[in-house]
Amino acid sequence: MTKLKWGMIGGGEGSQIGPAHRLGSQADGLFSFEAGALDVDAAKGRAYAQSLGIAADRAYGDWKEMLAGERGRDDKVDLVTVATPNNTHFEITKSFLEAGFHVLCEKPMTMTVEEGEEIVRVAKASGKTCAVNYCYSAYPMVRQMKAMVAAGELGAIRTVVANFSHGHHAAGDDADNPRVRWRYDPAQAGVSGQMADCGIHALHMASFITGDEVEKLSADFASTVKGRVLEDDAMVNFRTMKGTVGRLWTSTIALGRQHGLDIAIYGEKGGMRWASEQPNQIIYNRLGARTEIIEKGEAGLSEDAQRMSRVAIAHPEGFPLAVANIYVDLAAKIRGEGKGNLPTAEDGLRSMAAVFAAVDSASKDGAWVDARPPMFR
Amino acid sequence: MTKLKWGMIGGGEGSQIGPAHRLGSQADGLFSFEAGALDVDAAKGRAYAQSLGIAADRAYGDWKEMLAGERGRDDKVDLVTVATPNNTHFEITKSFLEAGFHVLCEKPMTMTVEEGEEIVRVAKASGKTCAVNYCYSAYPMVRQMKAMVAAGELGAIRTVVANFSHGHHAAGDDADNPRVRWRYDPAQAGVSGQMADCGIHALHMASFITGDEVEKLSADFASTVKGRVLEDDAMVNFRTMKGTVGRLWTSTIALGRQHGLDIAIYGEKGGMRWASEQPNQIIYNRLGARTEIIEKGEAGLSEDAQRMSRVAIAHPEGFPLAVANIYVDLAAKIRGEGKGNLPTAEDGLRSMAAVFAAVDSASKDGAWVDARPPMFR
Amino acid sequence: MTKLKWGMIGGGEGSQIGPAHRLGSQADGLFSFEAGALDVDAAKGRAYAQSLGIAADRAYGDWKEMLAGERGRDDKVDLVTVATPNNTHFEITKSFLEAGFHVLCEKPMTMTVEEGEEIVRVAKASGKTCAVNYCYSAYPMVRQMKAMVAAGELGAIRTVVANFSHGHHAAGDDADNPRVRWRYDPAQAGVSGQMADCGIHALHMASFITGDEVEKLSADFASTVKGRVLEDDAMVNFRTMKGTVGRLWTSTIALGRQHGLDIAIYGEKGGMRWASEQPNQIIYNRLGARTEIIEKGEAGLSEDAQRMSRVAIAHPEGFPLAVANIYVDLAAKIRGEGKGNLPTAEDGLRSMAAVFAAVDSASKDGAWVDARPPMFR
Amino acid sequence: MTKLKWGMIGGGEGSQIGPAHRLGSQADGLFSFEAGALDVDAAKGRAYAQSLGIAADRAYGDWKEMLAGERGRDDKVDLVTVATPNNTHFEITKSFLEAGFHVLCEKPMTMTVEEGEEIVRVAKASGKTCAVNYCYSAYPMVRQMKAMVAAGELGAIRTVVANFSHGHHAAGDDADNPRVRWRYDPAQAGVSGQMADCGIHALHMASFITGDEVEKLSADFASTVKGRVLEDDAMVNFRTMKGTVGRLWTSTIALGRQHGLDIAIYGEKGGMRWASEQPNQIIYNRLGARTEIIEKGEAGLSEDAQRMSRVAIAHPEGFPLAVANIYVDLAAKIRGEGKGNLPTAEDGLRSMAAVFAAVDSASKDGAWVDARPPMFR
Ligand SMILES: NC(=O)c1ccc[n+]([C@@H]2O[C@H](COP(=O)([O-])OP(=O)(O)OC[C@H]3O[C@@H](n4cnc5c(N)ncnc54)[C@H](O)[C@@H]3O)[C@@H](O)[C@H]2O)c1
Ligand SMILES: NC(=O)c1ccc[n+]([C@@H]2O[C@H](COP(=O)([O-])OP(=O)(O)OC[C@H]3O[C@@H](n4cnc5c(N)ncnc54)[C@H](O)[C@@H]3O)[C@@H](O)[C@H]2O)c1
Ligand SMILES: NC(=O)c1ccc[n+]([C@@H]2O[C@H](COP(=O)([O-])OP(=O)(O)OC[C@H]3O[C@@H](n4cnc5c(N)ncnc54)[C@H](O)[C@@H]3O)[C@@H](O)[C@H]2O)c1
Ligand SMILES: NC(=O)c1ccc[n+]([C@@H]2O[C@H](COP(=O)([O-])OP(=O)(O)OC[C@H]3O[C@@H](n4cnc5c(N)ncnc54)[C@H](O)[C@@H]3O)[C@@H](O)[C@H]2O)c1
Repeated sequence: MTKLKWGMIGGGEGSQIGPAHRLGSQADGLFSFEAGALDVDAAKGRAYAQSLGIAADRAYGDWKEMLAGERGRDDKVDLVTVATPNNTHFEITKSFLEAGFHVLCEKPMTMTVEEGEEIVRVAKASGKTCAVNYCYSAYPMVRQMKAMVAAGELGAIRTVVANFSHGHHAAGDDADNPRVRWRYDPAQAGVSGQMADCGIHALHMASFITGDEVEKLSADFASTVKGRVLEDDAMVNFRTMKGTVGRLWTSTIALGRQHGLDIAIYGEKGGMRWASEQPNQIIYNRLGARTEIIEKGEAGLSEDAQRMSRVAIAHPEGFPLAVANIYVDLAAKIRGEGKGNLPTAEDGLRSMAAVFAAVDSASKDGAWVDARPPMFR
Repeated sequence: MTKLKWGMIGGGEGSQIGPAHRLGSQADGLFSFEAGALDVDAAKGRAYAQSLGIAADRAYGDWKEMLAGERGRDDKVDLVTVATPNNTHFEITKSFLEAGFHVLCEKPMTMTVEEGEEIVRVAKASGKTCAVNYCYSAYPMVRQMKAMVAAGELGAIRTVVANFSHGHHAAGDDADNPRVRWRYDPAQAGVSGQMADCGIHALHMASFITGDEVEKLSADFASTVKGRVLEDDAMVNFRTMKGTVGRLWTSTIALGRQHGLDIAIYGEKGGMRWASEQPNQIIYNRLGARTEIIEKGEAGLSEDAQRMSRVAIAHPEGFPLAVANIYVDLAAKIRGEGKGNLPTAEDGLRSMAAVFAAVDSASKDGAWVDARPPMFR
Repeated sequence: MTKLKWGMIGGGEGSQIGPAHRLGSQADGLFSFEAGALDVDAAKGRAYAQSLGIAADRAYGDWKEMLAGERGRDDKVDLVTVATPNNTHFEITKSFLEAGFHVLCEKPMTMTVEEGEEIVRVAKASGKTCAVNYCYSAYPMVRQMKAMVAAGELGAIRTVVANFSHGHHAAGDDADNPRVRWRYDPAQAGVSGQMADCGIHALHMASFITGDEVEKLSADFASTVKGRVLEDDAMVNFRTMKGTVGRLWTSTIALGRQHGLDIAIYGEKGGMRWASEQPNQIIYNRLGARTEIIEKGEAGLSEDAQRMSRVAIAHPEGFPLAVANIYVDLAAKIRGEGKGNLPTAEDGLRSMAAVFAAVDSASKDGAWVDARPPMFR
Repeated sequence: MTKLKWGMIGGGEGSQIGPAHRLGSQADGLFSFEAGALDVDAAKGRAYAQSLGIAADRAYGDWKEMLAGERGRDDKVDLVTVATPNNTHFEITKSFLEAGFHVLCEKPMTMTVEEGEEIVRVAKASGKTCAVNYCYSAYPMVRQMKAMVAAGELGAIRTVVANFSHGHHAAGDDADNPRVRWRYDPAQAGVSGQMADCGIHALHMASFITGDEVEKLSADFASTVKGRVLEDDAMVNFRTMKGTVGRLWTSTIALGRQHGLDIAIYGEKGGMRWASEQPNQIIYNRLGARTEIIEKGEAGLSEDAQRMSRVAIAHPEGFPLAVANIYVDLAAKIRGEGKGNLPTAEDGLRSMAAVFAAVDSASKDGAWVDARPPMFR
């Protein structure tokens, strides 16, 4: 099996998410890393790319150069990952899709709902895959939960409770720390702070696992650290198209929570929960039975859960390999070997619509508002 | 030290909470059990009281008989516990207070805000203690959390997250089960289901630990099981008088949760959390430090936490001894030895006001409403 | 039901185990506290007893006075608890048994195997109950494990792993601390330190749950803190009469363990484990199935597990109520209502024999030795 | 940075450990996979290697062919991983070392102590690196523990408790299952079952973290499943050169344990423990302080712990990336950039000596025997 060819934009030296993409794309030997425009500083980006083994002529200074350079080549990259800051995602993703590349775009896919709708249209027209890196959805046990819901094992879903809380922005003087401050400044971060940054992961998981979409929501936003404009603690109540009740809490001031992304699904016939800090287990409770523990790697798991696990039961697999699973599904999709369960441009758009709806609701004292993108109403 | 004399109304054979009160009052040898009207069925109540060692003339058929019998005696009971169904609490508590007895009333103290205000007035006029059995507040480690907040160890409190969820009413056919059905029927349960039954424990804890009161709230109620009128899943966002953000989720359909009463307190300088299923530990995180585990019984705990623990570190103490701690504080109060940190009629009233506010808000699509009792505005 | 009459020797003011016995005997209203010789200091003991409500003429100065005083009375106590230091247990227990009292003796029952055999003979001759306070065996979920093994749910038991480790004697200067030093001094503590003090609880549980007895053992003792003569860290390998393999580790220098008494039972058809710091759950694994959690208070538990639980599922019950369960079984036994599953003088003797065998083996480089009391070989 | 060239022997399609080596060597882009003799079946091995992108002339039929083919090439592989069944390790490893290749050999390195000594000599003479895949030692938090001990943070180490227990061979009919049976058959597995297969991982960790070596030991072996000759449950007591007490339990019949490799280190000044199923945390207790949780990725960790973690705090990293860390250290070593903390041929030899000592001791009723390889005495 020949490797697919891969390139990345952003994810330069010292970046947070860059290493996860490099590791994720390489882990299973599915992609070879051939091209990149890795840094906002052209020289640094070129140098770093070459230090990673990229040929000099494909170690680009910026994404436009890369687009120009790659589109003409016979051996052009199959897939481009966009791992730059949020406000550049739209333009880059759109351009590469239009030029006929498959794209994996980091979250949030766009800065506005309109841009999101545009990406959905462009992706459709291009016939290329546009995936969004909601990587938590590619943990084997998250796929297992999705499969269990789809198979009706929990019956109709009554309530979903999703959290993404941490305490890493709890210091009062974070208000002066430039690495933190920009996230709560509308001029730089847009309309939302923690909801757009982390809350959407939890919201996506709620939809992904239940196979359902948020219809409407009511939000309560708070800026608990003095000096912040955007929310650092948010609660969103929602209802899905199928009538499931949703509760989503997200916070950056929750001291003692490190990476509190967790989700519980309560249905007519069973309940289950999963936490990202212990991703290899599901706590499962069938109505009338004892609580039991489902282990990654045990016999009888769903097709996806099996396919996305590389080592035996109780040998933990973590975050980087969840990102790798996104690449596993991308490779299959690009090769036409399967649809997989990739988060798509539609999902990226839906998240944006939900963030804007939450901002709107919060500004109206929690009034219930439609959370769907206009093009899907 | 002579024992105080104690009597109970309700808590008959087979009742849920009766054993906890008997055990709680007896555990430390502070009260002798002298009188009771234990059952709605007079004959059963008399027989059962005598089987528990109560003298025949103090094994009463109903509470009015008991009130008449006790008030005239020289050796009358010092304290009366009211452990009957909710809709009788008001009348019984009021009558015993007016007759000069100290009262420990089960939660919820009353069925309406007006009744609650009346109990507060009567208790004040009587000069007697009226405590409400928010027994979770008497766990040693809950007292420890209260003391830590009071000492400023967490700084100003930004957010409180309190839950009381379980899955014991998740069966779809609960709608037909009389032992469950009444709880969701307005004719029998009043204006609220799970919020009034369990949510108020979590809400009380939020106030108790922070030493603060709920000012206003916004609620989202859902009846997720077909056939229910009152809510079985509720989310309440609130703000306290000091500006703390509150999040409270309570549910009866959360399969896999057995007794999910837990609370997290996030302040400027630290965060901590506690769960009723593991009541002997606090998970504590000081800003900039590692997460640490505070153990019941360790050296250096607050005065209350020490006083309310009977056995050495890591020897677990559970629910019945939390109830016993309410009696410990009651004995001290009755003897005039200390104010303690007893939940009072004021707390009972505040809970009622919050429940009614939540019902009101939920009926108005989550509009924010004043949660304070009129007499405290 | 009239209460039984109860007296205690030792357990004076400030003692460690005294409060657990008072609470345990009172919690369920089964015993009235009528007499005591509570302290090594006669005056203190008399005063303290009276402060607890004991009549002046039954607040004795020492156990001989109490024996003399009680044996003649019509309303003499039914049960005497011996909660004095170890080296007095034999004499006091023997004397009260011979005088026709039921006795609950603290562990270790005696200082030597010979004394243990003598108590067994005396108890038998007297026709009275002699129980030993292996209170962990009275946790509802430990009874549940015993019932499951007895019912064959785990098949033949292959291996038992029992630990009792803590870190409370880990300080190097404990060697100079009189409250700790005596425990490692043969002149005061006898032949064994941690094994005799804590290890025997774990060993008793292994026998209790499996319904089997230790036949032979091999031990490795270490005195890890400088200046100690007796062991503070011990490992015992054993085999039971039925051929089960046993592993028992006990330590006082295990920093980070608070009360590490836990036990795992591995059989042909299933495995289960329980830890004293979370006594309300059993982690259970049936061959070929998922791990499940058995909860105290759930439907369908064994008769003992149900009888010994006072409050609903997931309302934790802890150490003092395990001690109370010993009194529950004692009351039943004394009233002739059931044999119960009380730890007996035979169990106390077996523990002594095992401790002496371990000491012997350790002194012979781990040679395997017979662990049975001579009278049971 | 040019990639190093890598080849593998064994680890063919469907093998257990093969995927971990491929992923581990590729994850960080340090090695390119250039050659292999992957299967005992030559044709299968060639085909599978080519399907993984290996050139046809380097997709070898067996290891001798590979040795012949590679040694002559200019672009020969830098590193060979030996992932074949145990009884082939010695010959293959020796041959490749002698031919001047660096080797990563799977555990156990050899079948006998003599072979182990030979490998140590050959590796020394060759000047090449011979590492053994004790991959658990490359978890970031295991490196952190090693660094803490080395820095004296725990003081002198008193006791080490290491376990490797699971329940995956607990089925009684495993005795007939060929995939399991051979492990307990001396003709196929050699002198030891579970001790040689899993126990040595735990034993290596004990040495690795403490920076100390086992001097002598006493063992108790049991074959608990009918029909087995070799042990499926073993306990080893040991003493290190520095006098630390060691306890090691390993079992394959512990139903409910999935991958119970865990270790606790108790020193004069502190204790800590780590479990392979939750590899991103250390539970740490400093004498006199509260228990605290050390998180992978937190600020201030040891150089190794930082270097070997790829993603932020509380983003879990698991087993495959621990294997990758072995390759990280190998790449550094081969490039001469650092000694790293690689498990070496000496460690492989020491493990063999300890296994043989344990077998010897167990056959002599637990007599204490020297556990050191003769060449290190
Ligand atoms: N899926 C997840 O779990 C997850 C986690 C973290 C970050 N992210 C997302 O990844 C994206 C990057 O976040 P990060 O935390 O790695 O940011 P970062 O600031 O750490 O790194 C950004 C990188 O992009 C480079 N860059 C900036 N502008 C560029 C441009 N125009 N062209 C080329 N390179 C450019 C920078 O030089 C830097 O190397 C964000 O959209 C973020 O939301 C996702
Ligand atoms: N604090 C807590 O954690 C907690 C827990 C459970 C119940 N409760 C409260 O305790 C109260 C009782 O609840 P329960 O679950 O024990 O109910 P239950 O139905 O199990 O028992 C009620 C008992 O009261 C007796 N009774 C009814 N009417 C009476 C009357 N007029 N006079 C005398 N006796 C009467 C009944 O015969 C019965 O014995 C309720 O208010 C409930 O909300 C509190
Ligand atoms: N079952 C358990 O879990 C458990 C736990 C702790 C202690 N114990 C056992 O309980 C016994 C007491 O231990 P402790 O820790 O409470 O000891 P302690 O030293 O704290 O208290 C001993 C008490 O006995 C009194 N006493 C001493 N000699 C006496 C005598 N001759 N007559 C009357 N009173 C006398 C002392 O004054 C003191 O009040 C010991 O045998 C110990 O092994 C058992
Ligand atoms: N470090 C660890 O945590 C760990 C875990 C599992 C296995 N192992 C070790 O890895 C080794 C392999 O174990 P496994 O479980 O993967 O075995 P396996 O039986 O699953 O696979 C062995 C592979 O080696 C191939 N093979 C056999 N003989 C060969 C030969 N002569 N030449 C080339 N290929 C050959 C087989 O075809 C097969 O692909 C063993 O030594 C085992 O102890 C280590």
